[in-house]
Amino acid sequence: MADTYVLVHGAWHTGEQLEPVASHLRARGHVVHCPTLAGNQPGDDRSVLGLSEAAQSLVDFLVQHDLRDVRLMGHSYGGMVISKAVDVVPERITRLVYWNAFVPLSGECLNDMAPPPYKALFDAVAADNGNAVMLPYPIWREVFINDADAALARSAYEQLNPQPYRTFTEPVRLQTELAAKPLGKSYLLCTEDTAMPHSMPWHPRLSERLGLFRLVACPGSHELCFTNPQLLAQKIEEAGRD
Amino acid sequence: MADTYVLVHGAWHTGEQLEPVASHLRARGHVVHCPTLAGNQPGDDRSVLGLSEAAQSLVDFLVQHDLRDVRLMGHSYGGMVISKAVDVVPERITRLVYWNAFVPLSGECLNDMAPPPYKALFDAVAADNGNAVMLPYPIWREVFINDADAALARSAYEQLNPQPYRTFTEPVRLQTELAAKPLGKSYLLCTEDTAMPHSMPWHPRLSERLGLFRLVACPGSHELCFTNPQLLAQKIEEAGRD
Amino acid sequence: MADTYVLVHGAWHTGEQLEPVASHLRARGHVVHCPTLAGNQPGDDRSVLGLSEAAQSLVDFLVQHDLRDVRLMGHSYGGMVISKAVDVVPERITRLVYWNAFVPLSGECLNDMAPPPYKALFDAVAADNGNAVMLPYPIWREVFINDADAALARSAYEQLNPQPYRTFTEPVRLQTELAAKPLGKSYLLCTEDTAMPHSMPWHPRLSERLGLFRLVACPGSHELCFTNPQLLAQKIEEAGRD
Repeated sequence: MADTYVLVHGAWHTGEQLEPVASHLRARGHVVHCPTLAGNQPGDDRSVLGLSEAAQSLVDFLVQHDLRDVRLMGHSYGGMVISKAVDVVPERITRLVYWNAFVPLSGECLNDMAPPPYKALFDAVAADNGNAVMLPYPIWREVFINDADAALARSAYEQLNPQPYRTFTEPVRLQTELAAKPLGKSYLLCTEDTAMPHSMPWHPRLSERLGLFRLVACPGSHELCFTNPQLLAQKIEEAGRD
Repeated sequence: MADTYVLVHGAWHTGEQLEPVASHLRARGHVVHCPTLAGNQPGDDRSVLGLSEAAQSLVDFLVQHDLRDVRLMGHSYGGMVISKAVDVVPERITRLVYWNAFVPLSGECLNDMAPPPYKALFDAVAADNGNAVMLPYPIWREVFINDADAALARSAYEQLNPQPYRTFTEPVRLQTELAAKPLGKSYLLCTEDTAMPHSMPWHPRLSERLGLFRLVACPGSHELCFTNPQLLAQKIEEAGRD
Repeated sequence: MADTYVLVHGAWHTGEQLEPVASHLRARGHVVHCPTLAGNQPGDDRSVLGLSEAAQSLVDFLVQHDLRDVRLMGHSYGGMVISKAVDVVPERITRLVYWNAFVPLSGECLNDMAPPPYKALFDAVAADNGNAVMLPYPIWREVFINDADAALARSAYEQLNPQPYRTFTEPVRLQTELAAKPLGKSYLLCTEDTAMPHSMPWHPRLSERLGLFRLVACPGSHELCFTNPQLLAQKIEEAGRD
């Protein structure tokens, strides 16, 4: 059955890095879009853009393409963005899929859910870099893309772009908490993802904030879009289908 | 090596739904029985039957067929039933296998181990339905059979039967706690099973009540009997063998 | 790319039991050594040898073979030994790989991280056996090698040797805590390993003591070296590579 998917990238990424996943989903008959959020586009002013602008850019994308009955997936930081988008245009969205993604309560920012050492690191980096942050390579290699070989870890890193720090520090405001929203919700968990330390894990710590939700799990790191896009596509479909 | 297995279904099920699993075990050379418990048989009075009657019906089955050296598997609610049966006829049973199943302490009922929101839901449903409970379809689809496609989720749901609520509310009395019983014990864990929320999980919360036990894990939901009976049969054998 | 691996066995084992794993790694182009630690060699006086002697024997091995740029893997108790070795000859070691292994803080002994019932059991056994301990077969079969069939469980058990108990009770002294050491660190987790009960698990309880580390996980028991040496070799490479 042909469904419509919109795949929303995480911090430091663009939609381009989800295109291999989208190709596999298209081969299964689906319509797939991979927009790049405001803040991660070439030339964006990373000193000023925040979560509001990123979420608005996703809403605009859904409206401009008049997308309906959307399976809306968010990866990592993208969970913040889809959470706001569904609050604004719920009539366009059938199911949310959080892939190792943040699930906020109204009033929280991404940093409220992140490990305190990361927050301290990013505070320092942002202060020195015009309020944009990059991920140090050793962290990327060991805890984000731990399932890659060294060559892929490096080539993937070179595709990243600086993240406007306001996207991590600006709280999201929701009219209705996610647990109370009546649409379909899924959490797709890559089980070797230690971008969030397993002592304060993605699941069930954040996933259970969704209320009734469907869990789909598979082996892999936070960056399965690079290390196994075919498996990721299969699992997105298992998470996104009715 | 040919072993004797008795597979005990969970709530809302009958032995019929374990027959595909049994077929795979028989193809591996084993003798397999899939009795239907009192309370889940067609025509049973679901307003009065409880855990005592269900457990007695299993004991009667073991005695009437004069089964010995049994590998006794219980699924979910079936864990309550096998726990009582082994207390009554320990001489017939070589090993217990709990498949995503309740492991009671003496004096507990199933509801004592279940998530409080389920208990509240079932209390209300039972009051309106002659003390029998059905599982709402959205819960079934999202947290019981999350690894199925929509067609299988629906066709499996149509095979379920109302559960006498006294099987959830009647405490089990054991002469010896399970941890102190000297027979073999295994816990078979389907890792994507969120019928029990992962913040209060089947394993290790309930499994470790068995004392010394063998863990066998595999991917899959609470309803692997529908979604992958062949894998389930393989894992039951890994859990049940000497 | 050809790397140098040194695989350090756990308690009750010798290097011999890691040779099948080493063969698979050699077939992938690597140089692999599997030394047997002092205390586990035939004829060793198990009443006196402790962690110091075991660690010194590993250091001696590295020096005598003039090994450099080593990927040093420790299994279980072997984690104690590699932790001390890297403190003594850090210049020879590029990356530590802990395979379901103890990760000590300076001043701790193995027993400080082990389940209290094991400690009580081993205290009693050691008192009766000249300060050496063996693992009772039922524990071996159910929680160490739970993924084996009965024949393999038995044949593997017959390869074990008594463990000098001082290796479990002697604290390790480190000049620098592991989290502060700048070399590469990986934790290889077999997910069905219940040698450490999952209510006090290997990961993340002990793994996160490494500071920044790479997680690699795979299905299997504490004794994957017997039950699937090829998979173990593949995962050691994923953990050990740059």
